[in-house]
Amino acid sequence: MDTIDSIFTRHSYRGRYTDQAVPYEHLETIMQAGLAAPSGCNKQTVSLIAVDDPELLARLHTVIDPDVAESAPAMIFVLSRPIKAYRDRCFAVQDYGAAIENMLLAIHALGYASCWYEGHITDDDRICDKLAEILGVPNELDLVCLLPVGVAAELPKAPQKADFNERAWFNGYGKQS
Amino acid sequence: MDTIDSIFTRHSYRGRYTDQAVPYEHLETIMQAGLAAPSGCNKQTVSLIAVDDPELLARLHTVIDPDVAESAPAMIFVLSRPIKAYRDRCFAVQDYGAAIENMLLAIHALGYASCWYEGHITDDDRICDKLAEILGVPNELDLVCLLPVGVAAELPKAPQKADFNERAWFNGYGKQS
Repeated sequence: MDTIDSIFTRHSYRGRYTDQAVPYEHLETIMQAGLAAPSGCNKQTVSLIAVDDPELLARLHTVIDPDVAESAPAMIFVLSRPIKAYRDRCFAVQDYGAAIENMLLAIHALGYASCWYEGHITDDDRICDKLAEILGVPNELDLVCLLPVGVAAELPKAPQKADFNERAWFNGYGKQS
Repeated sequence: MDTIDSIFTRHSYRGRYTDQAVPYEHLETIMQAGLAAPSGCNKQTVSLIAVDDPELLARLHTVIDPDVAESAPAMIFVLSRPIKAYRDRCFAVQDYGAAIENMLLAIHALGYASCWYEGHITDDDRICDKLAEILGVPNELDLVCLLPVGVAAELPKAPQKADFNERAWFNGYGKQS
């Protein structure tokens, strides 16, 4: 799929998934895509765990409350190491933002759907910590996001967005070309 | 250019640019790509300014110290509105991380090079605020990043990265498939 087309046709998907499995090679490519994103001072603060083992998926779903993406045959968990890139500057959030976007595009280009679940698992009830414990993630890494991966059983809906002219300008703030 | 290929062949470019202009349509497509990124709770916290006016570019370069991307015929400035998506949660950094990655991929797919300049302009000397003033950016928006856009005059170098097996696993932390 063409890059620009992927970018414009990717949408967050919160519907049901078919039971079609995601081959190992695709999960590997998606994770490679995530790791290919740039990182502040090349600190490579992102690491990833793909899960497609049905028993492990079922165990993970027991701590996601309310549950999401129950029917997805695979999920990728994003781990972040919140270290300083230099002096007091940490770019770990930017790093995983870029890595996640790369993975969302790769997932879409390979014919799958996904959604960036971050707030739901990193709120005060700290679902992320329970997921991290099940996955054996060391304390120095934060589990910050889960991405389901699977074939959409329904049509994704594009969100309403502000017009281009309200968010992008040329040669000065608010200036149309 | 194929999506997966774009993701794997994009590299940060810090070299010289040729004087080939970037057409308006390409700058528009690149910014559309940025705005097509998802945002936490669809808050659309990112806005953008493309600059290709040579006099304005020259004025902006006078406040970038030390200067970067002096020869780039265009630059895109990323503005972020650091608002709460819900309760105390703000996803503005994630939002612009994803938007910037989309733009870096679109820039690469269209045959140009770029680099994510954030730390350099947002350090204690607050170059970002001087750039924002020149561009007429309102106070409630933070100028967080500049992306040069142009044709590379030299070959980009890929950074050294850790092996896949050191950063990505299957069905548990540290587990190879």
